[in-house]
Amino acid sequence: MSPELSPTPRSTVRKSARARTDRADLHAVLDAGLVAHLGVVVDGAPLVLPTTYGRVGDTVYVHASTGAPSLRAAAGHRVCLTVTLLDGLVYARSVFHHSANYRSAVLHAEARPVTDPQEKLAALRALVEHVTPGSWEHARGPSAKELAATAVLAIDTSEASVKVRQGPPVDDDADVEAGTAWAGVLPVTQSWGEPQPCALLPVEAAVPAHVRDRG
Amino acid sequence: MSPELSPTPRSTVRKSARARTDRADLHAVLDAGLVAHLGVVVDGAPLVLPTTYGRVGDTVYVHASTGAPSLRAAAGHRVCLTVTLLDGLVYARSVFHHSANYRSAVLHAEARPVTDPQEKLAALRALVEHVTPGSWEHARGPSAKELAATAVLAIDTSEASVKVRQGPPVDDDADVEAGTAWAGVLPVTQSWGEPQPCALLPVEAAVPAHVRDRG
Repeated sequence: MSPELSPTPRSTVRKSARARTDRADLHAVLDAGLVAHLGVVVDGAPLVLPTTYGRVGDTVYVHASTGAPSLRAAAGHRVCLTVTLLDGLVYARSVFHHSANYRSAVLHAEARPVTDPQEKLAALRALVEHVTPGSWEHARGPSAKELAATAVLAIDTSEASVKVRQGPPVDDDADVEAGTAWAGVLPVTQSWGEPQPCALLPVEAAVPAHVRDRG
Repeated sequence: MSPELSPTPRSTVRKSARARTDRADLHAVLDAGLVAHLGVVVDGAPLVLPTTYGRVGDTVYVHASTGAPSLRAAAGHRVCLTVTLLDGLVYARSVFHHSANYRSAVLHAEARPVTDPQEKLAALRALVEHVTPGSWEHARGPSAKELAATAVLAIDTSEASVKVRQGPPVDDDADVEAGTAWAGVLPVTQSWGEPQPCALLPVEAAVPAHVRDRG
């Protein structure tokens, strides 16, 4: 796949200063996020649900119970998968120019049900390792019954847009000169808290390194 | 409006143990979030875009430039607005039972363009005060030209669902007894960084309390 994103009318970013056109930027946003919002159309109306995901090359995978109605609405149909990372709140000198610093990726694709057992296993591994790195080796792997109860959808990243806003507010000159209001950025950061061991663990169970030292 | 959410087929939560049915729970999730994902249907396909929002009573407001195509696709049409708060990653003894702790709210409504000047101003105030509390009084208010360039949509919260997952992993008994894997929750927290003043501010400008002491 080309290292550059080739915008279609659907994936063209309006404010071009915020658009990123490298596939590497797309991968960076997808890899930094934990939760995506998956949009499907049900009876002509949009439905947007949060989901975790994983990436293998140019494909994003999501999963759900085989009984999930949203999954049935997505399989074989057009979907939109969006990942947004909020980096800061932008305080401007006017309320009009208030903004947010963020990175977002928007994928447009037909969701392909994954039926090949090898691809399905690789997709689930990518998903688990994206959300909880180290868990695929540490925890018990999926049984045949568990695999049968899990549906996986593949979402191709060919048609995608990436937007990034960063930096200070962009105010009108008159407001800057007036100097009556503060302006700047309040960064938003996400961090891990102290691991909370399950009460059913043996008392001597230590928090393993892949959880304790998660970056 | 009733203090209880009345699920429609669309807003019925499948895993009922995770469903919340109080309007107060809906408001709590909406008030705790900063970014929503708005789903619209464009040419039969879903489009999901991140946006900030504000709430006044039982109405959520979003805004955009009057020139934004996504806004034109939403105005007067069915939309889905989803707010998700990630609270933790759930490490289970099997990869199958890995999960996430989260709170989410999903609204289904027809997006109503706000044309009344008073409602529009109140909506923008709610939006600014939700994302950047204190800014409406501190910064310059919107000019007539800025108001004309801003479109506001109202999204009613009547048809809504709220889901909450919290607590430890739910593992199979055999995996708990085997005791071969760690299990627990890694909390995810969002916090503010140090305010970054705009370089064009007078050097003596102090960070105001509504930014410095933001809770």
